[in-house]
Amino acid sequence: MRLSRYFLPVLKETPAEAQIVSHRLMLRAGMIKQASAGIYSWLPLGYRVLRRIEQIVHEEQQRAGHVPMLMPTLQSAELWQESGRYDAYGPEMLRIKDRHERDLLYGPTNEELITDIFRSYVGSYKQLPLTLYHIQWKFRDEIRPRFGVMRGREFLMKDGYNFDLTREDALHAYNRHLVSYLRTYERMGLQAIPMRAESGPIGGDDTHEFLVLAETGESEVFYDSEITELKFGDREIDYDSVEQCQSVLEEFTSRYARTDDTHEEAVFEERVPEERRRRARGIEVGQIFYFGTKYSEPMGATVQGPDGKPVPVHMGSHGIGVSRLLGAIIEASHDDNGIIWPEGVTPFHCGIVNLKQGDAEADGACEKLEAALMAKGLEPLYDDRDERAGAKFATMDLIGLPWRITVGPRGLKNGVVELTSRRTGESEELTPEAAVERVAEIYAPHL
Amino acid sequence: MRLSRYFLPVLKETPAEAQIVSHRLMLRAGMIKQASAGIYSWLPLGYRVLRRIEQIVHEEQQRAGHVPMLMPTLQSAELWQESGRYDAYGPEMLRIKDRHERDLLYGPTNEELITDIFRSYVGSYKQLPLTLYHIQWKFRDEIRPRFGVMRGREFLMKDGYNFDLTREDALHAYNRHLVSYLRTYERMGLQAIPMRAESGPIGGDDTHEFLVLAETGESEVFYDSEITELKFGDREIDYDSVEQCQSVLEEFTSRYARTDDTHEEAVFEERVPEERRRRARGIEVGQIFYFGTKYSEPMGATVQGPDGKPVPVHMGSHGIGVSRLLGAIIEASHDDNGIIWPEGVTPFHCGIVNLKQGDAEADGACEKLEAALMAKGLEPLYDDRDERAGAKFATMDLIGLPWRITVGPRGLKNGVVELTSRRTGESEELTPEAAVERVAEIYAPHL
Repeated sequence: MRLSRYFLPVLKETPAEAQIVSHRLMLRAGMIKQASAGIYSWLPLGYRVLRRIEQIVHEEQQRAGHVPMLMPTLQSAELWQESGRYDAYGPEMLRIKDRHERDLLYGPTNEELITDIFRSYVGSYKQLPLTLYHIQWKFRDEIRPRFGVMRGREFLMKDGYNFDLTREDALHAYNRHLVSYLRTYERMGLQAIPMRAESGPIGGDDTHEFLVLAETGESEVFYDSEITELKFGDREIDYDSVEQCQSVLEEFTSRYARTDDTHEEAVFEERVPEERRRRARGIEVGQIFYFGTKYSEPMGATVQGPDGKPVPVHMGSHGIGVSRLLGAIIEASHDDNGIIWPEGVTPFHCGIVNLKQGDAEADGACEKLEAALMAKGLEPLYDDRDERAGAKFATMDLIGLPWRITVGPRGLKNGVVELTSRRTGESEELTPEAAVERVAEIYAPHL
Repeated sequence: MRLSRYFLPVLKETPAEAQIVSHRLMLRAGMIKQASAGIYSWLPLGYRVLRRIEQIVHEEQQRAGHVPMLMPTLQSAELWQESGRYDAYGPEMLRIKDRHERDLLYGPTNEELITDIFRSYVGSYKQLPLTLYHIQWKFRDEIRPRFGVMRGREFLMKDGYNFDLTREDALHAYNRHLVSYLRTYERMGLQAIPMRAESGPIGGDDTHEFLVLAETGESEVFYDSEITELKFGDREIDYDSVEQCQSVLEEFTSRYARTDDTHEEAVFEERVPEERRRRARGIEVGQIFYFGTKYSEPMGATVQGPDGKPVPVHMGSHGIGVSRLLGAIIEASHDDNGIIWPEGVTPFHCGIVNLKQGDAEADGACEKLEAALMAKGLEPLYDDRDERAGAKFATMDLIGLPWRITVGPRGLKNGVVELTSRRTGESEELTPEAAVERVAEIYAPHL
């Protein structure tokens, strides 16, 4: 992409309304614009990151055997009356009347709708296990939306629902989600720690939240510091294997890690040696629930079991805050100059800065670099504007592409360009061909 | 994908509520389920087609140089009051009050919001031309939603907006959209004829609708039969070239083709020889508009021109009915047994039918075929259920995959499988390797 043909409205001033760094940087980097309170337009750069995150979530969900579909944003009130949540949900549910005065609502979550779909079509235990998921816009009418996309009203979420014959099968689905989430977040460059949590309005006995450590987090968290040394890495998991999923779950959840909702100071002190006790703040980026027959019983989602008798299915629901993740990633990865995208989610793989726009040799070298990177399946952003080098560097730092290639007449005389890491600031002189090879190698695990 | 692990709830009976064939087939093939009047859940098979169509639209938009972004579904009423459309839009606009009694609406289109974004950031003619687009859910509160996704209330649309300094530049953007739409629809296996139309509530002087011929179309259309012989084909277009876009536009719009809104019988008879005059019905699948300064003037979307003076930008908007296209494609491509997907949008590239599930040799051959197709970048659907051959064939015919490979013990004895075209019903015996090669060749232009 040529910057001269792109729409990247970076701001010089820090917007006054933004209280936390991710919100400030998303506004300054031209990623989002508020449309109304807690509702955002995703400008081209923000949209690119949103799509990358969505793509990782899709890939990891499908790797775990979950089936994608799409439920609508608006739902009829009837199903929520059936489950009893229509009145219980309170003012965070956006209630709507259509032209015929029928009650609709903007879905904050989809347990009722998916249960209705399930009961309409599935009649036998032979069609189980089944996990359906979608990535769709949701709405929660927060009383005080703030922190940009971190606590917006219209937000993008992946929510998935498992249907199983027995409690044991459903607990495997729970474990499978936990494992798959670990891999999902790590691909985004995040360490998200599963912590025992409370279930809130979704209900159920078992639930874990995934928290990213960040000073601006909304939750206080308490954990054993050994947890932060765990890596999912590139291990291969058979998601059908009860043992494998159980063993990963135990590895990642056996140590103390809780939010303020479930924290017990006495247990913390008893189980964790003092030097490993950490009290910090965290951002919730996902949550998994097992809630058994909470919805299937009142809504009649039963299947015929092996003995021919009808049994209500065991269910769970599992969410990832897709749009909120942009904020969480920035909170966890930035410096004074701007964002530092992890390679897995960066909007462009590599910036190209032309120090002498209009110079035939520099322009030609930049165009060749751009083409060579694209031939490797990479998406570069070429700053071809007629701007000072300082302004170009500042923009690149602000928008946070992890790698930058700088092209200038002086280097070209010696046959080299400069490859710079956004994270370390370290630069290396390389031939253009070698720079392309290096960048392609770096991204190989992410393409 | 193994059918035993998928969620494909096909129906045996024809649902009584469906009046047109695409609606019937989408329900029977387990593609959609109504959530409430005019609002649908996209079951896994329907979702796959929706994503393929979306992907083609994205690719063709970006090929034409248009920049993707994403605006929210809910908008504040204020911008619509500014443009004067809040009162004018009528009861089809879904109006919402949030918990603070602020007026929101579910966007039926986005001229106001995109104009607001533009005016907030763009100040100079040097940042033009610019075309931004998004693919987002919209809502129109139709008084009588019907025909499934063809006239739903919540629907997915691509809408794009061009911003140009002059009327001439904006007309080039208009032409560029027309050309890019021709290519887009052809990739979906559709012939969509651009017809001069009326502008309705969007406004403006110039507008073309794209219509797919189908008996169930909502519009009466009148055209010169020569038009149906035009093909966009694989011509290469430089979308920056005014001449090239103009010349394609002339080729595809110089012959008489109008909807009932703009039809003039006398002109039709004068310009088209009787044997080429066609009166038929059509489904609208897209529309492009040039409306100049209709929004930029009242909303103050001006840029500094080359002479330093502020000028309102010239705009147009351009829509493709993404979810509606599924219905249109089925209306145009089906038979008594079910859907016949064009290769460009099929949910799976190839079906695999195992005639003797549980037979070690047949199972092994199917698994090898599945793996070989996937290694070619194709997505097969392997019917591995323990079902009669007849039921498996009926399901494959209903869901409309263009190609099917049938594997049975008798053929395997002779080292062959059967490759069948859904469209022609013709079969060919081939070695498994040759069948994979043939299918890969067929899809090469679509991957």
